[in-house]
Amino acid sequence: MPDSLGDSMIDKLAPAGPVELTGDSVAVQRPVPPVIITGGLWHERQRINREASIPLGIGKLAEAGNFDDLRLAAGERLDVAYRGPVYMDTDVYKMLESVAYELGAGAGDEALATFLTEAIGLITRAQTDDGYLNSYYQVNAPDQRYAKLENSHELYTAGHLFQAAVALARAGDDRLLPIARRLADHLVRVFLDERKPRLDGHPEAETALVELYRLTGIESYLDLARRLIDDRGRGLVGHSPVGSAYFQDALPVREMPILTGHAVRAMYLEAGIVDVYLETGDRSLLDGSITRWEDAVATKTAITGGHGARQLKEAFGEGYELPSDQAYNETCAAVASIHWSWRLLLATGEARFADLIERTLYNVFAASVSLDGLEFFKGNPLQRRHDHEQVIGDPRYRGGWFWSACCPPNVTRLMSSLGHYVATTDAETLYLQQYTEGVVHGSVAGGELAATLRTDLPWSGRVMITIDRVPDGPCGLALRLPSWSERTELFVNDGPVPVQPDDRGYLVLRRAWRAGDTIRLELDLSPRLITPHPKIDAVRGSVAFERGPLVYCFEQLDQPEGVELERLRLAPEPELQVRPVDDHPGIGRTVLLDVSADVLADLPDTGLPYFRTPPAPTPRPVTATAIPYFQWSNRDRRAMRVWLPTC
Amino acid sequence: MPDSLGDSMIDKLAPAGPVELTGDSVAVQRPVPPVIITGGLWHERQRINREASIPLGIGKLAEAGNFDDLRLAAGERLDVAYRGPVYMDTDVYKMLESVAYELGAGAGDEALATFLTEAIGLITRAQTDDGYLNSYYQVNAPDQRYAKLENSHELYTAGHLFQAAVALARAGDDRLLPIARRLADHLVRVFLDERKPRLDGHPEAETALVELYRLTGIESYLDLARRLIDDRGRGLVGHSPVGSAYFQDALPVREMPILTGHAVRAMYLEAGIVDVYLETGDRSLLDGSITRWEDAVATKTAITGGHGARQLKEAFGEGYELPSDQAYNETCAAVASIHWSWRLLLATGEARFADLIERTLYNVFAASVSLDGLEFFKGNPLQRRHDHEQVIGDPRYRGGWFWSACCPPNVTRLMSSLGHYVATTDAETLYLQQYTEGVVHGSVAGGELAATLRTDLPWSGRVMITIDRVPDGPCGLALRLPSWSERTELFVNDGPVPVQPDDRGYLVLRRAWRAGDTIRLELDLSPRLITPHPKIDAVRGSVAFERGPLVYCFEQLDQPEGVELERLRLAPEPELQVRPVDDHPGIGRTVLLDVSADVLADLPDTGLPYFRTPPAPTPRPVTATAIPYFQWSNRDRRAMRVWLPTC
Repeated sequence: MPDSLGDSMIDKLAPAGPVELTGDSVAVQRPVPPVIITGGLWHERQRINREASIPLGIGKLAEAGNFDDLRLAAGERLDVAYRGPVYMDTDVYKMLESVAYELGAGAGDEALATFLTEAIGLITRAQTDDGYLNSYYQVNAPDQRYAKLENSHELYTAGHLFQAAVALARAGDDRLLPIARRLADHLVRVFLDERKPRLDGHPEAETALVELYRLTGIESYLDLARRLIDDRGRGLVGHSPVGSAYFQDALPVREMPILTGHAVRAMYLEAGIVDVYLETGDRSLLDGSITRWEDAVATKTAITGGHGARQLKEAFGEGYELPSDQAYNETCAAVASIHWSWRLLLATGEARFADLIERTLYNVFAASVSLDGLEFFKGNPLQRRHDHEQVIGDPRYRGGWFWSACCPPNVTRLMSSLGHYVATTDAETLYLQQYTEGVVHGSVAGGELAATLRTDLPWSGRVMITIDRVPDGPCGLALRLPSWSERTELFVNDGPVPVQPDDRGYLVLRRAWRAGDTIRLELDLSPRLITPHPKIDAVRGSVAFERGPLVYCFEQLDQPEGVELERLRLAPEPELQVRPVDDHPGIGRTVLLDVSADVLADLPDTGLPYFRTPPAPTPRPVTATAIPYFQWSNRDRRAMRVWLPTC
Repeated sequence: MPDSLGDSMIDKLAPAGPVELTGDSVAVQRPVPPVIITGGLWHERQRINREASIPLGIGKLAEAGNFDDLRLAAGERLDVAYRGPVYMDTDVYKMLESVAYELGAGAGDEALATFLTEAIGLITRAQTDDGYLNSYYQVNAPDQRYAKLENSHELYTAGHLFQAAVALARAGDDRLLPIARRLADHLVRVFLDERKPRLDGHPEAETALVELYRLTGIESYLDLARRLIDDRGRGLVGHSPVGSAYFQDALPVREMPILTGHAVRAMYLEAGIVDVYLETGDRSLLDGSITRWEDAVATKTAITGGHGARQLKEAFGEGYELPSDQAYNETCAAVASIHWSWRLLLATGEARFADLIERTLYNVFAASVSLDGLEFFKGNPLQRRHDHEQVIGDPRYRGGWFWSACCPPNVTRLMSSLGHYVATTDAETLYLQQYTEGVVHGSVAGGELAATLRTDLPWSGRVMITIDRVPDGPCGLALRLPSWSERTELFVNDGPVPVQPDDRGYLVLRRAWRAGDTIRLELDLSPRLITPHPKIDAVRGSVAFERGPLVYCFEQLDQPEGVELERLRLAPEPELQVRPVDDHPGIGRTVLLDVSADVLADLPDTGLPYFRTPPAPTPRPVTATAIPYFQWSNRDRRAMRVWLPTC
């Protein structure tokens, strides 16, 4: 690839989204047109997503019954029974949304076009005359519309339709939009005009309604989103055996101090809260969301960026709970977390939100799908033991699809839309939020600033930026300084520039740019030894390893012959060696990390695993080898751990 | 109480049980008549059980619908709906079993007699003509008998009826026995004669059928128990979404290497396996059970004796999983564990099984019911945080009764029957397994050896034994040497005796005893600092404290003003001070443990709880105070932890 891709690439770019703000938005930063990622790790993952995951998903919609369920709703099949959970339609909608982003990036093909036409036709036929649309209730309980909102997911399902319709419309296909609007109008009648005193147990419609408002300009959609948020926490969802905090209905959102309950629900709601702020300027919504984000980050976030520590009820869990082996860290929660942080970034212009997006993308999200794109994690633990109980449906093993298949199409839609999260602008400055290969452009200073990015991240630390188009007069180019880069260097046209981030976390270069100017950012990829907060009981006396944006992990397979992973201990004065490998068997390109370690000897058998006189270990030195966490579980199903004990 | 209670007490003793072996049993040791506990901690807990817990339980049977469900089955009420889970009848049966042990100990009163008569009458009327008895299926799905055995608990429920009937018969009330026999005969017809190819998802009938065989001598009951065990692990239970290991149906019992799945189910099954061994001599059953016990003890037992680490599916979890905060350690699992270990003790004569019973009784079991006897834990964690999410139905808070009320009547039946677990005999020797106040007697050496025990355990370490009756000629008195007593002293008639346990763990004193002989055992109650096995990630870098049989814990309430529990760290050179207190507010008599500790200072706010440069703590010395774990959560619902960090 040449240093600059120039105009040809820029002109191919699709419209912006998700979160295409209205002109009235109070956002501090705004999205730019999505970047087409042209090389590197994410280019490869997007290619696999397009060639393997999306075709797999479309096939599964036929196989698992999603299409048949819609046919039943349309009255077209009578020979099959309804299959799957109440939110079966959302898998179809999320696949449509994924395909929309592919179209937007110019990657449509005949198979995708066929899927689009068939799915949209089916959805059109399934919708009832009054706009209601939910195959489960239409087929199984037509008299129970909105009667069981605590579990029915009817608004949640509608939300995913809206997001698909918006994404398709932004990609130039507006066939789904009338259906979405009819359903949205129906919801407005029932929940806003008639003010039905109930709310959906699973938030999602809030953020989707704001997006539909952004696209259509129809204010009642924004009003409905606001009503769903204002009325939450007042007991309107219904009864849950695990308490109303499970679905964020225990406290009004302006009084909620921390996130509670089901992690995905909590963070979809937060995305909606910030969306409503962005379009209304209601600061009382933003402040609480930032406070809850800060608490979640400080006390409830795995080192991989994972959220939702607890498998039980897929819950956030308590502050500092954060187990390794039993961690849930649902894949959908990673997607929801990125949606939320992205909106907070637009609302505040602070790089810390992009920092978390980067951590989440490179670790929990990248690990959630196998390297071949065909298997998905529902949960993303930080440890798997040798004698792991292989429970059927265990969220800690990847599977090709699930009965509750929320995660795989969430992976595909985020993977297809990664280009949306690369850059932002404000009036004067183009902000680079994530470093990947491609062309970034945005409107600044009354003109357009465009630049070509080249980088080999996460494998090496150089980012080369070549200016392609410039506005008249000076403008800013801001580079997010990743929190992990300790000794960063910066050069403009080969001249060194002081690395002085502003208080938002950006290196702002403001000048009269010229086409052909180059910026070279040298990020520090020295491997790092990470110590956990002493309140995290689960990983006390352990350390983790990071390099650049990547968290590392130890798989049994890479350790010396005969050395059981669970017996490895960090050596007292450890050495870390970086070992780039072009084609590690079963993984491909990677950078290994060799760590000096000890092997614990056998302990005396004393019955219970508790000792009055601590066993004196006789350690044996070995070299332990770690791989990037996102590459784990692609070779076998044996033990893995992120946190390496020191004692 | 005088040193010897003499003949008056012995003559009041009720018949033996649970596990009243047949004459043909291959047991190495045999139970003796239950000991009436006349003083000390367990006497007090039994009094509260009798005066508070049992009346509460009987009241709850009316309130929660258990009686009404039986009335519905008997066709006596039509104005109420069935309430509660499929195993509602078991609560009635377990309360009847509790009352039976009270009667056996001479503690019957008019209220208990009324309950007995009414409940037995109700059960009698509810039973169908062909012997089937299960209120849930009779009322809700009479055509579904044994059709959903994976979840129906029909044999499980029958088992609890058998145990109640056996206990009552042994206490002299045989009114429930004909009902139990009719149901057992019905089961024999269906599951043995007609060989219905299904098994119950929840083991329990196995051990109960062996008991019914022991009482009645009817061999088909033993044969049915054997069939239920022999056929397990062959996929006959049915489908479980979490896999057949959940209900121990993945491998035949003789091929099961370790316990898997639901902890209570697994250990009830083991009790049945050892029971069948005890009455048939089928050694292939015993060996595997011992192997699984050893694995469970070595890798899946909490320091409190709790089993079943995982709240999710109430499962054993993996080896060394053993979290503190999320530990389940179900109360019913503690009861099942004691049932299992008691049978292994009889089968092998090895003190290690009584050691585990002691640990389980004094810690997880004693903690499972509040000191006032009115509230029960379903789960027994080793840590509770400040910001614990107060989920409704959270198993980590005691409640007065539960929708699935398996635990409370399991507590009452074990508390009422504690006297059964005090001693055993073989042909020549009387074995003291647990040290409590009361009169122990058993048949040895062709005569009777009886002794009065006096002790203030667990508060002080002296056990005084006075011989009351002796056989002609020499015989043995064996004292279990608890594994926790490091420097033990032993005196016979005030003369020191060498403390030399045999390879089973007993101090055997063999001589021609005379009435009035005294034995004084001085157990070592020095407080102990306990280090966990380095494979238990969850408590790495932490220590626990024990004194005698008691595990200690730190409650927020007892720490110095303003010192947050989660900031306490063990001092580098800790001192332990024992502080006996006659009446600690809200707890009563106890022995506190003062531990020198440090308070961690505030850490810098760096966003995520992970540090590249470990924060340098500036510790502040304080004295932390621990109470016995079994006394926790009786004063407030704030933080608690068993394991104190060292780093």
